[in-house]
Amino acid sequence: MSDFNPTEQAHRRFNPLNGEWILVSPHRSKRPWQGQQEAPDRSQRPPYDPTCYLCPGNTRANGEVNPNYEGTFVFDNDFAALTPEVPTGATDIGGLLRAEAESGVGRVICFSPRHDLTLPEMSVQDIRRVVDVWTDEYRTLGARPDINYVQIFENKGQVMGCSNPHPHGQIWAQRTVPGEPAKETTQQLAYFEKNGRSLLADYLVIEEREQERIVFANAHWVVLVPYWAIWPFETLVVPRRHVQDLTQLTDAEKDALAEAVQQITIRYDNLFQTSFPYSAGLHQRPTDGQAHESWHLHLHFYPPLLRSATVRKFMVGYELLANAQRDITPEYAAQRLREQSNVHYKQHLD
Amino acid sequence: MSDFNPTEQAHRRFNPLNGEWILVSPHRSKRPWQGQQEAPDRSQRPPYDPTCYLCPGNTRANGEVNPNYEGTFVFDNDFAALTPEVPTGATDIGGLLRAEAESGVGRVICFSPRHDLTLPEMSVQDIRRVVDVWTDEYRTLGARPDINYVQIFENKGQVMGCSNPHPHGQIWAQRTVPGEPAKETTQQLAYFEKNGRSLLADYLVIEEREQERIVFANAHWVVLVPYWAIWPFETLVVPRRHVQDLTQLTDAEKDALAEAVQQITIRYDNLFQTSFPYSAGLHQRPTDGQAHESWHLHLHFYPPLLRSATVRKFMVGYELLANAQRDITPEYAAQRLREQSNVHYKQHLD
Ligand SMILES: O=P(O)(O)O[C@H]1O[C@H](CO)[C@@H](O)[C@H](O)[C@H]1O
Ligand SMILES: O=P(O)(O)O[C@H]1O[C@H](CO)[C@@H](O)[C@H](O)[C@H]1O
Repeated sequence: MSDFNPTEQAHRRFNPLNGEWILVSPHRSKRPWQGQQEAPDRSQRPPYDPTCYLCPGNTRANGEVNPNYEGTFVFDNDFAALTPEVPTGATDIGGLLRAEAESGVGRVICFSPRHDLTLPEMSVQDIRRVVDVWTDEYRTLGARPDINYVQIFENKGQVMGCSNPHPHGQIWAQRTVPGEPAKETTQQLAYFEKNGRSLLADYLVIEEREQERIVFANAHWVVLVPYWAIWPFETLVVPRRHVQDLTQLTDAEKDALAEAVQQITIRYDNLFQTSFPYSAGLHQRPTDGQAHESWHLHLHFYPPLLRSATVRKFMVGYELLANAQRDITPEYAAQRLREQSNVHYKQHLD
Repeated sequence: MSDFNPTEQAHRRFNPLNGEWILVSPHRSKRPWQGQQEAPDRSQRPPYDPTCYLCPGNTRANGEVNPNYEGTFVFDNDFAALTPEVPTGATDIGGLLRAEAESGVGRVICFSPRHDLTLPEMSVQDIRRVVDVWTDEYRTLGARPDINYVQIFENKGQVMGCSNPHPHGQIWAQRTVPGEPAKETTQQLAYFEKNGRSLLADYLVIEEREQERIVFANAHWVVLVPYWAIWPFETLVVPRRHVQDLTQLTDAEKDALAEAVQQITIRYDNLFQTSFPYSAGLHQRPTDGQAHESWHLHLHFYPPLLRSATVRKFMVGYELLANAQRDITPEYAAQRLREQSNVHYKQHLD
């Protein structure tokens, strides 16, 4: 084991969930940054915006009028990347030019009628309503014979390609199983067949013993910076119980998930005193009719900020051409998040 | 084959070079964009900037003074992500927490002493000098027993994480073979063993027959939008001759590569009349001492802009959690690039 010191020296870590390696360069966080800076989010938004296509009662681009919803509101994406009525078909030229028709559904989920809120500013009860929508949508879409995978996600912040600040997420559900969940299916199955247990359940046992990557935990969920995190403050939200999807959760577990989501997003906002951008999403078993007993439900948070509200990590040259890479260690990131207050910083501003 | 129409309907395409699928949603390019916009590059830079740490004669952060170089200039990265003197070592907890020490070298390549130039504004002769540096660096680094892979790349533009506009690229060379070239090694080897020919050579034959994805070609190189492109205007630059790395190229082939690089980057700049941001890099055989006969040298260009100098494609929620996705078709992108002038737009401004 020699003098190898992963807190200071370059090393690779293995992601057992998708089978890929990541390069960690802890010493590199000292480099100066003179490049692009993001504008910090100083916007004070009104609770209702007459020009927002997601606010209650407003008219969308296609002429439809939103109901005067009071909790959540779900509708078919007016510009969905996937549509149900694609004719099937495929081409294959020499095994090198291969394509297949793909079909599916795009949905938009408004988390709240309030234009000025985000998840960390909502109550646990209100986030619980979002959890219930995720559950219902997964169940309903997953039951369709033409849908074999349901991806629920949220892009938060302009830097994450979000074009409307009204709190909302999306669902892209489709016929085939996309690349990332397919890799996780393979990896979890291999582990389960070898050990007879859930990969993530075993992983939680180790992390609860080590503690240093854990950010928040309650009776049913653990939030941690995974050992193999790519994004600077990436986190993984895992239920203690080995379940394959949201529909298997008890009421208490769904309440606890709402609390976990609130707690991690509050800490994110508090870290740099800004509305913390991220992409986040649920990974659940494919809805292809198989049991997928090895699958262990979880949520990923992928936030880009690195050193402040304005300096982000770029996944560019080396990362695109060669390998995922990070500068600060996951252990340092977890410590920074753990030491944040569990009360949103804006509440102190009031 | 039914009514499947890949120019208008969602479909998946297979990337034979890395074995992954990509989702194409051509109908979606019509959606309106109200989100983050990048600032177009209107900067008029001076030929020499006294505050630039890459300009000739200037002092870098670590106190070293750049020579008064007239062509290219290469030095060890002052903030390298990889360093040679890492002690070896590894950890493994239950197969779930796995890490290994990693060592390597980071280098910076200044393409020109002129602070105000970029590759598309340089002459073919001057780009040829950059090609020669790439070749020498690959040869020298690759000959080291502690270096088994050499990644040469360029991040251009602030939106691609580039912190200094002085024209330059980087090299990260390391002990292990990173993820992307490892996948390409596997895929090319499998094809070669099955067919006895180079995957990319066979692919070029098909593309030259079909023509619709080809942007530029000369006697030795073809520039095309690959059938499986992820980024909106992604291109692949492939030598007609099946060689594994730059050191095998003839002088005529290196001149022709310089011309191909100039021609594709001029067309990029002309497309939206802006200094077109991208990450680009060379993929060459690992330098682990094996022959890797199946490897076929190539360059990737990954540019983020989608619809204008200010509207980019975001690889976020669905892309990070599920699968790579694009809106415009590769065929449309190739057509747009093909119809650009081969003279840089700034020359018309003079
Ligand atoms: O090395 P630079 O130019 O400081 O940094 C840039 O390129 C690196 C290699 O792709 C990335 O890891 C960084 O995120 C990016 O900002
Ligand atoms: O669907 P939206 O919010 O218009 O678009 C956003 O999320 C999508 C799914 O991650 C991405 O493909 C787009 O690049 C991004 O801008």
